[in-house]
Amino acid sequence: MALTNISPVLPSGFRDYLPAEAIARGRMIATIRTVFERYGFDPLETPAVERTDVLTGNDPRFRMIIYEAQTTAQRRAAEPIDTALRYDLTVPLARVVAANRSLPLPFKRYQTGNVWRGERPQAGRFREFLQCDADIVGTASPLADAEAIACIADAMRALGITQFAIRINNRKILNGLAEAVGFDIAQAADVLRVIDKLPKVGREAVLRELGKPKRGANVAEGDDASESDSGCGLSASAVERIGVFLALAGTTDTLLDQMAAFFSESVVATEGVAELRSVIAALRAMEVPEEVVVLDPSIARGLSYYTGTVFETFLGELPSMGSVCSGGRYDDLVARFSDVSVPAVGFSFGVDRLFAALTTLNYIAGVATTAEVLVTIMDPEALPEYLAMTAALRRADIRTVLWLGTRMGFKEQLAYASDRGIPIAVIAGSDERAAGTVTIRDLRTRQQEVVARDALIASVRRMLVGRNA
Amino acid sequence: MALTNISPVLPSGFRDYLPAEAIARGRMIATIRTVFERYGFDPLETPAVERTDVLTGNDPRFRMIIYEAQTTAQRRAAEPIDTALRYDLTVPLARVVAANRSLPLPFKRYQTGNVWRGERPQAGRFREFLQCDADIVGTASPLADAEAIACIADAMRALGITQFAIRINNRKILNGLAEAVGFDIAQAADVLRVIDKLPKVGREAVLRELGKPKRGANVAEGDDASESDSGCGLSASAVERIGVFLALAGTTDTLLDQMAAFFSESVVATEGVAELRSVIAALRAMEVPEEVVVLDPSIARGLSYYTGTVFETFLGELPSMGSVCSGGRYDDLVARFSDVSVPAVGFSFGVDRLFAALTTLNYIAGVATTAEVLVTIMDPEALPEYLAMTAALRRADIRTVLWLGTRMGFKEQLAYASDRGIPIAVIAGSDERAAGTVTIRDLRTRQQEVVARDALIASVRRMLVGRNA
Repeated sequence: MALTNISPVLPSGFRDYLPAEAIARGRMIATIRTVFERYGFDPLETPAVERTDVLTGNDPRFRMIIYEAQTTAQRRAAEPIDTALRYDLTVPLARVVAANRSLPLPFKRYQTGNVWRGERPQAGRFREFLQCDADIVGTASPLADAEAIACIADAMRALGITQFAIRINNRKILNGLAEAVGFDIAQAADVLRVIDKLPKVGREAVLRELGKPKRGANVAEGDDASESDSGCGLSASAVERIGVFLALAGTTDTLLDQMAAFFSESVVATEGVAELRSVIAALRAMEVPEEVVVLDPSIARGLSYYTGTVFETFLGELPSMGSVCSGGRYDDLVARFSDVSVPAVGFSFGVDRLFAALTTLNYIAGVATTAEVLVTIMDPEALPEYLAMTAALRRADIRTVLWLGTRMGFKEQLAYASDRGIPIAVIAGSDERAAGTVTIRDLRTRQQEVVARDALIASVRRMLVGRNA
Repeated sequence: MALTNISPVLPSGFRDYLPAEAIARGRMIATIRTVFERYGFDPLETPAVERTDVLTGNDPRFRMIIYEAQTTAQRRAAEPIDTALRYDLTVPLARVVAANRSLPLPFKRYQTGNVWRGERPQAGRFREFLQCDADIVGTASPLADAEAIACIADAMRALGITQFAIRINNRKILNGLAEAVGFDIAQAADVLRVIDKLPKVGREAVLRELGKPKRGANVAEGDDASESDSGCGLSASAVERIGVFLALAGTTDTLLDQMAAFFSESVVATEGVAELRSVIAALRAMEVPEEVVVLDPSIARGLSYYTGTVFETFLGELPSMGSVCSGGRYDDLVARFSDVSVPAVGFSFGVDRLFAALTTLNYIAGVATTAEVLVTIMDPEALPEYLAMTAALRRADIRTVLWLGTRMGFKEQLAYASDRGIPIAVIAGSDERAAGTVTIRDLRTRQQEVVARDALIASVRRMLVGRNA
């Protein structure tokens, strides 16, 4: 039927994970989940497809990152259905909380799942990526913010990462900048967007952009000059004050005092500083190491829904990778779906970025297979014996591959075990069978031993333990 | 900003899994994966989005189950990109094998993931559902078919299911029907589709439909008479012979002999019977219980890509649920993408259907949370002590929730623990704190004990063990 072969390629921006990577990624995810559960988060599963208005909140700016999803029948019928793939796990959580009023609050949930974004694929950036999120919904307590940060620190350590910093700030402090520095509050979003670039472009470039004139209203819409051509048009004195703010530095306690003084005129920023103090105090009581948590006045987080504490996590050995786990407090998101205000805080591990970083740093132990033993077929006449050995090994919970190829060469079977990275081969040729024995061969050390057929399982187990010791 | 609330609803055909269900489902999946790895299958991850031609093989009949997926930008630009969500995990596997020629064969992989189908949503049928697949690619050996069936049997037992039957047949036998019974081979697909309905509609209805005249070619396309209005138009003698075939019964060995006799004139069916014999012999050698494996001449499998052994798994206590795990041999699928023929066999657990069945049968132990302990906050002044206890419990790997609500009533905190199903509460009020003790309360038995603060972890652990014993 197939006259022309179909090319076995993926759409741009998507990729496969072959076993070696899938095993390592799976272990990372399992580690993160274990820590989430230790913190009392329970799993939640939501579908990949949501209504577009739920995802975007009817904000047209989101359209360009949305992956539309509809059946062919829906498209052909031009049904007025507007559905798309989720671009994060937070908005679906807000929908679930709004729709399930009987959930005990605070609701602590985690979710592991792919999200999709229609951004143009770039090197190392994909259109599908995996997130591991944990959120606490239904409390405004700064304790919840501290729990989130402590949980990130524990998860990082559980992943074997010792050098990292969780950089913390508070959106209320940033919102107070307008008051404290003297610019129009309507410009706050623009100013935050520019400050958010600080780790990438540096302090000088940020200050330059803040002071640069705004692109005029007379520029035609759809002009393809990029956004960065337009500055914020702040006054020289405002830019200078922001420069002072971004240069605040010192130990955590010094910095908190400096911030309190800098923002003494702003009610909202003073509230933000007080929240930061509570979060820091709680982290100390939970014995989160001081060096792991860094106050950073420049952390803003791009997403518009954050309202209080915000944080990003950087690898000490690879800060250029950007944040591998980010989050913050978003007290108004559930209100998109409900008249009730439900304060919330949460965070998201970018598993793919973290995986790429740990691979670069050689933190990922490359295991090509989880299989432990290959049972070879030396003599097709004796097939029932090989099958019985295979079944016995599996009953003993030893991960066992039976040779299933149609060619029966001994070398071919051992080469298969080596290619897959299976450490041990079990061999029972005519000599062994006549003697009631079996040969167990360690394919990495090339050592082997001949043991009684009855001792197969115990001997394999001993060889496996020896390898792992 | 949000003037009107957005309704927190899901598109039709999609659903959430709240924690109690997500926990139970997660355990099911973990159990299945453990068995897959015990059989030497390694994980593979492929993306949700694939090229439509890859998914459908350019067969237009697939369009109606396809979920299209494209970015808004792609749609607006009318880019000639045709991408969609995968409808199974088998076709993506075939693509991976065709694209990665250096994979060691036989390639044994498992994959757990959602798939999407645009069929009209019905009661209990969703447009997104989770599959757990395992496949062996690159061998035509009937041993591989036997491995697949043995693995299903082990996974079912690992899930705690003791009453089930894996019903086996071979497509070559069904293809041989045309020869053995006397009808046009071009009708084979239609005949198989009708035979496949046997468990649902019964033998009489199947035979009636086989003999009913075909819908004439003069019926206009798009006529909305349903497919079932059209029969196969087989001769009375052919229908009678198929009736004899479908009525074959007896022990496995008797049935194999009956089939061999029935099909003695058909080369292809004789090959199918020989393959069944090999599979049965291997299952016996692997000590798969006889009663679990049932030869069933009526099993056909709907999907067109099967070429040899086919099987379906039914629950003894709920056969009406249909097959919860199905699969078979598909030797020609990789050839869609490649000039090389790569034979393969595999199967798929329908996790959602299985989960629904096990829930109906009360096999699912309802656990509302994985959390084990709530640390209450009795005295906000003593917050650092509660935080230190929480951190200590978590370091001891006890899954611990700290009270994060902003209201501090004792009853409210205990009610929260009960509502979430957290079994143990840790209470340290002013009395306990003065005495250097802590109260540990089992919320189900309502028993409690006062222990030294130093004995907190050991005591909680003992109480947890007591509960599970």
